[in-house]
Amino acid sequence: MRIVILTIGDEVLRGDVVDTNAAWLGSRLSELGRILLARVSVGDAVDDIVRALVEIGARADFAIVSGGLGPTEDDRTTEAAARAARVGRCLHEPSLACIRERFSRLGLAMTPNNVGQAMLPDGADPLPNDCGTAPGFALHIGACRCYFLPGVPREMRAMFDALVAPALAGAPLHTRTLHVFGMGESHIDHALRDLDAGSVEVHYQTRFPENLVKLVSREAAELARVEAEVRRRLGGAIYGIDGDTLAAAVGRELRARGATLGIGESCTGGLVGHLLTEVPGSSDILRGAVVAYANEAKQALLGVPEKTIERHGAVSAQTAIAMAEGAQRAFLATFGLATTGIAGPGGGSDEKPVGTLHFAVAGPDGTVARHRLYPGERERIKLLCAWSALSLLLRVLRGDAGS
Amino acid sequence: MRIVILTIGDEVLRGDVVDTNAAWLGSRLSELGRILLARVSVGDAVDDIVRALVEIGARADFAIVSGGLGPTEDDRTTEAAARAARVGRCLHEPSLACIRERFSRLGLAMTPNNVGQAMLPDGADPLPNDCGTAPGFALHIGACRCYFLPGVPREMRAMFDALVAPALAGAPLHTRTLHVFGMGESHIDHALRDLDAGSVEVHYQTRFPENLVKLVSREAAELARVEAEVRRRLGGAIYGIDGDTLAAAVGRELRARGATLGIGESCTGGLVGHLLTEVPGSSDILRGAVVAYANEAKQALLGVPEKTIERHGAVSAQTAIAMAEGAQRAFLATFGLATTGIAGPGGGSDEKPVGTLHFAVAGPDGTVARHRLYPGERERIKLLCAWSALSLLLRVLRGDAGS
Repeated sequence: MRIVILTIGDEVLRGDVVDTNAAWLGSRLSELGRILLARVSVGDAVDDIVRALVEIGARADFAIVSGGLGPTEDDRTTEAAARAARVGRCLHEPSLACIRERFSRLGLAMTPNNVGQAMLPDGADPLPNDCGTAPGFALHIGACRCYFLPGVPREMRAMFDALVAPALAGAPLHTRTLHVFGMGESHIDHALRDLDAGSVEVHYQTRFPENLVKLVSREAAELARVEAEVRRRLGGAIYGIDGDTLAAAVGRELRARGATLGIGESCTGGLVGHLLTEVPGSSDILRGAVVAYANEAKQALLGVPEKTIERHGAVSAQTAIAMAEGAQRAFLATFGLATTGIAGPGGGSDEKPVGTLHFAVAGPDGTVARHRLYPGERERIKLLCAWSALSLLLRVLRGDAGS
Repeated sequence: MRIVILTIGDEVLRGDVVDTNAAWLGSRLSELGRILLARVSVGDAVDDIVRALVEIGARADFAIVSGGLGPTEDDRTTEAAARAARVGRCLHEPSLACIRERFSRLGLAMTPNNVGQAMLPDGADPLPNDCGTAPGFALHIGACRCYFLPGVPREMRAMFDALVAPALAGAPLHTRTLHVFGMGESHIDHALRDLDAGSVEVHYQTRFPENLVKLVSREAAELARVEAEVRRRLGGAIYGIDGDTLAAAVGRELRARGATLGIGESCTGGLVGHLLTEVPGSSDILRGAVVAYANEAKQALLGVPEKTIERHGAVSAQTAIAMAEGAQRAFLATFGLATTGIAGPGGGSDEKPVGTLHFAVAGPDGTVARHRLYPGERERIKLLCAWSALSLLLRVLRGDAGS
């Protein structure tokens, strides 16, 4: 099958946004065992879209097109599709009813533009969009079956998985993604050197701040054998599999033992709490967090002794430990987790440069603390600190905190 | 000038890496006042590259091609370029000397593959690569001048700026991006209907949860005129310009009046603090936050009266107000900001469905509260709540909170 992806939009072409849709679609297609022939992006000009669609119609069997289905004057994909297929357009009443229903449910006023979103090419099969107003559609252009999806990533992804992927599924591939944190790509590569992968494909992917090891095979038993060997070699650096997140893994371990968590954050500024609360049901395990940016707040809300800060500084193992124990106490929680560090760009010194991080976990069996020095920008340092702290908590919960 | 970007590589096509080269090139081209006709990606298969280059030769005047110049067997771009241009290849001695010199300087052994990197199409103009081993080259394919650059972003960027940009420089474009929050795309479109944009291009872009209105013109005065009219029509929904973020705008306003902030978060789980602390220097204005997920924490750490929660519920205007005032008090801050709501998927009721959000700002002139009902997933609701709260604080700071 000759598959092409076409993404549409001036903002993609001009580089105002990175074309994550194309990357996501490419990745999903490989998971489905499909190889892509090419991917193409054009701007919003209707003639350019028509020309690209006609070429795709002549060269490919299957196309996924995203973008340009919105309500504004920029959005000309439907018109272009009709011209490329040499058909007219007509109002698709059920799609219009869906759009109307959605607006009324949200209590919003519908504009005439939104009506235009229900004008589909003649002969198109509408593809319902449960997450937004723009319906998609499928249409033959030449011999090529083209699926038109909205450009909004959330909507495009949901519609691809529900409506397009089934049409593409070939012989199923077994896949396993292992999530690794705290081990760089070259170290993973080294640890997996001479791995006897047999017929299993092994791919590496960096998705900062973690690394993914992806295993793909048509044979489930072979996949399981290679996965076991990778796990033996990478050990506790693997925190989860497939769609897992570090926060979800932490939440699962806490819930499994009926434990609760209180957090004391300094340099991470709320990011640890934010990551944990992205997971549905986190209110069962997270009692709360104090973001104690000011030293007075560390003392008043987390009970960190003034002397500890005076003697060792706000960025120190001692302060991290006092914050973790203070958060455990303040929230009457089973575990306390704390971060303190220098996220930069200001605030560094020779002794404690930007990127110096301390984090600690207080639990029923005592308190453990760790420190790291990470290079880079503020945003990156905050993220690494939040992940390091959560990773330490996960290792404590799994009885694998080491020394 | 009809310009096309071609990026080459299986890893890009499969989505293992996001095609940041294409985004970077698109963005640099707009800065140079150039509009891109299309961008295309193909894999490493030499026939696919030849076909793409022949098409580009027939359709474009200027092409930038990146990737596939490395030393491995995957790297077939030079061969494909020669085939597309119907010329042979020969060893380019000065390029070979550069590669040799580079290897000896780094104390590395040169492999025969590296010799292959100096085999250029006949008639090509070599483009020296100061950061890596693969030299680039420029070559006519049909009537199209094609610049072949390596795929390594650092090398590609340096070579583009030094060797390709000068060939492209036209009249510069003036641009202005207006950041809008709290007004959907179709409402913006409606509000800007019949805008007399003259020679100014107006583009819309949704970058959830905000919308961008981009103005592009070759005339600075025209741009200023249209910007003033857009501002008049969209009013306080515009929070900032160009590279601004909502958190940075809030930080700037607080700093300008020497004010500080304390935060009480419930449903946002730390996200408000996280967004504010992404901005360097936020420790000057942010004293801290309490993430009070458990009701006991709302009482103990933010002083929310037990009766308020009993009578009105944890998700209510009254609790939001008490949390904002409690955060202001607990952190001895000029302003207090609070969020409480139901992020879902659980916890909703008929009276207070998932997506019900209350937020409040306590300041020297009193406390204001707002509520919203947003549809969608947990992640989306959290983000909308954090943005709504920050947006309310910004309006209060700007004296534009309305009713």
